[in-house]
Amino acid sequence: MPEQQSADSPFDLAEGHPFGPHNLPYGVFSPGGSGERRVGVRLGEFVLDAGAVAGVLGSPHAGVLSQATLNPLMAAGRGVWSEVRRQLTAWVTESAYRETAAAYFHPLAEVALHLPFEVADYVDFYASENHARNLGRLFRPDAEDSLMPNWKHLPVGYHGRAGTVVVSGTEVVRPSGQRKTPADPVPVFGASVRLDIETEVGFVVGVPTEIGQPVALADFREHVFGLTLLNDWSARDIQAWEYVPLGPHLGKSFATSVSAWITPLEALDAARIAPPARTHELLPYLDDTLEELRGEPGGYDLRITVELNGQVISEPPFSTMYWTAAQQLAHMTVNGASLRTGDLYGSGTVSGGTEGERGSLLELSWGGKNPLELPDGKRTFLEDGDEVTMTAWAPGPGGTRVALGEVRGRIAAAR
Amino acid sequence: MPEQQSADSPFDLAEGHPFGPHNLPYGVFSPGGSGERRVGVRLGEFVLDAGAVAGVLGSPHAGVLSQATLNPLMAAGRGVWSEVRRQLTAWVTESAYRETAAAYFHPLAEVALHLPFEVADYVDFYASENHARNLGRLFRPDAEDSLMPNWKHLPVGYHGRAGTVVVSGTEVVRPSGQRKTPADPVPVFGASVRLDIETEVGFVVGVPTEIGQPVALADFREHVFGLTLLNDWSARDIQAWEYVPLGPHLGKSFATSVSAWITPLEALDAARIAPPARTHELLPYLDDTLEELRGEPGGYDLRITVELNGQVISEPPFSTMYWTAAQQLAHMTVNGASLRTGDLYGSGTVSGGTEGERGSLLELSWGGKNPLELPDGKRTFLEDGDEVTMTAWAPGPGGTRVALGEVRGRIAAAR
Repeated sequence: MPEQQSADSPFDLAEGHPFGPHNLPYGVFSPGGSGERRVGVRLGEFVLDAGAVAGVLGSPHAGVLSQATLNPLMAAGRGVWSEVRRQLTAWVTESAYRETAAAYFHPLAEVALHLPFEVADYVDFYASENHARNLGRLFRPDAEDSLMPNWKHLPVGYHGRAGTVVVSGTEVVRPSGQRKTPADPVPVFGASVRLDIETEVGFVVGVPTEIGQPVALADFREHVFGLTLLNDWSARDIQAWEYVPLGPHLGKSFATSVSAWITPLEALDAARIAPPARTHELLPYLDDTLEELRGEPGGYDLRITVELNGQVISEPPFSTMYWTAAQQLAHMTVNGASLRTGDLYGSGTVSGGTEGERGSLLELSWGGKNPLELPDGKRTFLEDGDEVTMTAWAPGPGGTRVALGEVRGRIAAAR
Repeated sequence: MPEQQSADSPFDLAEGHPFGPHNLPYGVFSPGGSGERRVGVRLGEFVLDAGAVAGVLGSPHAGVLSQATLNPLMAAGRGVWSEVRRQLTAWVTESAYRETAAAYFHPLAEVALHLPFEVADYVDFYASENHARNLGRLFRPDAEDSLMPNWKHLPVGYHGRAGTVVVSGTEVVRPSGQRKTPADPVPVFGASVRLDIETEVGFVVGVPTEIGQPVALADFREHVFGLTLLNDWSARDIQAWEYVPLGPHLGKSFATSVSAWITPLEALDAARIAPPARTHELLPYLDDTLEELRGEPGGYDLRITVELNGQVISEPPFSTMYWTAAQQLAHMTVNGASLRTGDLYGSGTVSGGTEGERGSLLELSWGGKNPLELPDGKRTFLEDGDEVTMTAWAPGPGGTRVALGEVRGRIAAAR
């Protein structure tokens, strides 16, 4: 989705701009030339210095907004999140505040954007049935069922590397490592030749828990602050050789990109939808068909677009995800594992039911057998210099659209 | 190994006490009744307030020692580590400093010990050939080779949950979760009935790296600050059902215990030994048979003892580990993944070649088939109230022993 033209003033936004006052995602920015990090809120093509304006307007929440990361705001809890959002909405929409607020906007083009929160633990799930079935067909073509026996009973996930989560725009150096195809007598070392993307949505935990305390499905919104697009870069050749029996490691740990903007869950209230019908009865801690949860559907109707060097290569619909973020949170904590402010968990690759909706090159090129035709040539996996951009929007209030911050990365040659 | 009797004064240690001045591990303590956290150094049954004594003696390193975690000291690098260790040794051994230092010792019994560092990422390896073969025989009895094809070519590892690393002495609540035996038509939910230990050694990273910069084998000691005993508690029933295809998750993420004391690598110089002979040629980044590395053997001769309710159940020899900590670090970063101060990586379960040297109950009871006979009854896996204690020692200078801090945990009933 192309973003709309930037306006001369943050208040001159076109009606229904996808980064309009109904959106207001949070980030961390440095004003041009400065190394100082500040909490910012995006409005159109501008960023509002939230801590500064909160201070001058005497907000009781100026403290959590005057920080170098979003973590203090994220830790403050749902009541504060709502109140801060109400205040921000007033500051950018009500004429009484306009003159004051105007002084604290910076054009996006003149700021540096940073990783907006300190990542605590990073967990990656595998929640798209289409994706899991595609991978089953690709890797186990003779299997009776393309899904593993556990897949419909629990949201399969694993821990990834928190220290290599990077902000959109960060260059991704092609990883080197071991790989071994059946034709190789011994493993060979070198730059990955099957470098891939995984189109995901990341959920960011704000409110922590004590060890031993599971989070119930219904408490999802008490803990999760917001979401972001996430590209779980994957070196398929490294992964294929290393991953038995303990799962992916070096094939994933070199970089995971997230947007510079965290969209608060409240901005996505109009995008909530029921997940696909469940085909298997779920254990109670995962059962989101219960009466009390019907008013809180766990899915999000996010329409994602993936571009490779400016060409749309896929439009994965997040509405097709079998497991919801609330189920993932309940599962992740059911053994008593505690949450920390800054925990990030990825949805897993989002793949829809059609070829044009697949979230990885592995699926789009069907294991490399059907190259994509691009203006600059055929593509199975990523080449040096390739740039991948993921964008997304969701239905907002009154027919508007809510855009997520893009996640973008260019591949640099292996060192 | 029972610890020796505590002395009345820290300077009256028995000759060759395993926590003598040749050891000096680091921890974080609070003096009795106080909530304040301070860097401490253990001498016998006392802890020296390192920041306070460094301050009063005018050490240039008082800053990194006057902190609530070891992270600033760990980040300071090998030069500072050596210099601080030389100073500490002088302060606790030379008569000129004794009177001053004496005022800053606290009996261990009168302090609270904390998790000594902030854990960044936690990676767990699988480096014992005996352990890997035992698990292969248990889970794939019909396989031609009890090892997976990749095992002799790379140190297999995966990320675990950093947020649930806890200090020795922390109660471990029995986790609940899904499990499914072949006899169950559908998964059942409940408290784990196959709760196990994994006897490991953890390595703690001090000096970080930039993303994209691998760490060479020879640079291990520039980055790794020290080591600790580690108990990677494992719910085998949860793990068995969840772990295909992305590896262990809930079966491990509920708790990982480490010692309250980090032993600096320098204290273990006399314990360095060559690892087992390599049976497969290694790729250059892992090849520790090269000429220039012969003077820096990668193994550590640590003798571990595991007690269950006070009875010795195993004595795993760390000298048998196939993959060294230096190889694990080189592998973990060869794809360009960066290190952060506080990264922790576990060796994997240490199992020797004999039955009495196995590092997990899964192996000791051979999958539950051969229960251990203990004074309080038979044991396959852990029961509520069971307490597991791991201790270890290594050869020190001049025939002394260097003890590692114990790691201890008692199982509380599921909630």
